[in-house]
Amino acid sequence: MKNILIIGCGLLGSSLLRRIAKKRLAKKIFIYEKSKKNISKIKRLKLPGILIPNLKKGVENSNFIIFCTPMSEYKKIILKINKYLTSKHIITDLGSSKLKSLQVINKNLKKNIFWTSSHPIAGSEVSGPEYGKQNLFENKWCILIKDKRSNKKNLKFLSFFWKKIGSKTVIMNSVKHDKIFSITSHLPHLVAYNLVKSAQDFEKKQNYELLKYSAGGLRDFSRIAASNEIMWRDILFDNKKNVSKAIDLFIKNLNSFKKDLKSENHKSILKKLIQTKKVRSQIIKLKQDINRPDFGRD
Amino acid sequence: MKNILIIGCGLLGSSLLRRIAKKRLAKKIFIYEKSKKNISKIKRLKLPGILIPNLKKGVENSNFIIFCTPMSEYKKIILKINKYLTSKHIITDLGSSKLKSLQVINKNLKKNIFWTSSHPIAGSEVSGPEYGKQNLFENKWCILIKDKRSNKKNLKFLSFFWKKIGSKTVIMNSVKHDKIFSITSHLPHLVAYNLVKSAQDFEKKQNYELLKYSAGGLRDFSRIAASNEIMWRDILFDNKKNVSKAIDLFIKNLNSFKKDLKSENHKSILKKLIQTKKVRSQIIKLKQDINRPDFGRD
Repeated sequence: MKNILIIGCGLLGSSLLRRIAKKRLAKKIFIYEKSKKNISKIKRLKLPGILIPNLKKGVENSNFIIFCTPMSEYKKIILKINKYLTSKHIITDLGSSKLKSLQVINKNLKKNIFWTSSHPIAGSEVSGPEYGKQNLFENKWCILIKDKRSNKKNLKFLSFFWKKIGSKTVIMNSVKHDKIFSITSHLPHLVAYNLVKSAQDFEKKQNYELLKYSAGGLRDFSRIAASNEIMWRDILFDNKKNVSKAIDLFIKNLNSFKKDLKSENHKSILKKLIQTKKVRSQIIKLKQDINRPDFGRD
Repeated sequence: MKNILIIGCGLLGSSLLRRIAKKRLAKKIFIYEKSKKNISKIKRLKLPGILIPNLKKGVENSNFIIFCTPMSEYKKIILKINKYLTSKHIITDLGSSKLKSLQVINKNLKKNIFWTSSHPIAGSEVSGPEYGKQNLFENKWCILIKDKRSNKKNLKFLSFFWKKIGSKTVIMNSVKHDKIFSITSHLPHLVAYNLVKSAQDFEKKQNYELLKYSAGGLRDFSRIAASNEIMWRDILFDNKKNVSKAIDLFIKNLNSFKKDLKSENHKSILKKLIQTKKVRSQIIKLKQDINRPDFGRD
């Protein structure tokens, strides 16, 4: 059994913490958190684990380190802990994009240290340790990244670890990972942000109290557009090449849709609406969403 | 107390039916439904009300008529019932856009007949009488349209009626209505359809099993993209001028976002993400969505 160091104890870090403690997956759990606000929340919530004031103690006393911070923090932390790291440390992170973050890791991490990146497909629009849940990762996919800094042994350990956390695991390379998530996650998020922004732009001109009438669709997008801004800035810049391509594909479809509207091409629009409708039942069949109308929210 | 004729008994019609029966808001309720599949569902579900085989009987025996069909059906039905209509009939419909549908109504409805249009901001991605719920309209806004075919008395009656159904009412003209909903509802729907389509296009090329990983954002959009295709084709064509303008505004924002990504303008992107984030709490404060993370779905 390992001693685990969790770096960054917000929504994701505190969810892992709760699960690890509940399932007794570690001998000791150390928590490093730089935000004073979060530290006092962690204390008030009486979360399990030992809060440590500096990374040195955590790294020296752990053999498994999990980065749960925004990706823009990795470099600074790596440079701080490099001198305490040994090749025996198992290191992972939960970043949502991989190509560029792994470049940063590779460039800054000391030689002969392994890093095996994870991406659990779980999260929420709320942030902070008070929203963490021990079952956040339950039945969710967790992608493990095979690249030059990972090794077989650590991949095997992480597969085992994430299964204990309740997740299903799959291994892929960072190129494939970043392409997939540019479409299934990054594009939807930036679309949601821009849709809400368009409503705000419109409202500035017209002052129609738009939000009063947001239950007709906009409210769904506002949830995703409420996601943590630092985390999402990092993801979108990290994966900007794929994301830009995804925007182009999407704008192409929007323009074609607009053209169909203009030319009164009822048949083409209907075909598109029918074609996209099928996806919902596939997503439910794949257990990627709950099988209740309106997300069961009413 | 009125005798009510409900024309079209799918999700919305059957929800109204259930509520009217539960609250005893009518002496008699007649149901006209043209789909044989829906008729047998209505019978199997033992929904209240009298199923009638032709519109004549329903119109002659009712003083309040509610159109709950897709908007593209209005003309045909109006032409069928014109000869049975009198100026005493109160008529409404639940269409989601108003400018063009009211033109069609005006053009085809017999002289001296009133029509007072409603738009309850309620619905779901599922269709059919089996999904109707008596509380579908509870605490939802219902827009009443003031135009040349409406009159004061009927507007007053409909305000009263929708309050009995559980809704909050507001009166506006069709121009304002269609502008508001082009942004809060029509644009979100077509964006959802096009986002899902973009994922499908991408998958055709790459075959990456994208949907397996849809929990990172795409699944939210797939719900709206599963909405009834006939209803949405009608809405988007009916309001195509405003919808096209909304698409333009949205694409403008997408292009500006892409430019910020390309030029590494972290500050601008962060500002946008922070600005749009605020909307979620406003929507919750206005009670347009539930106050639980992730729509409370997990």
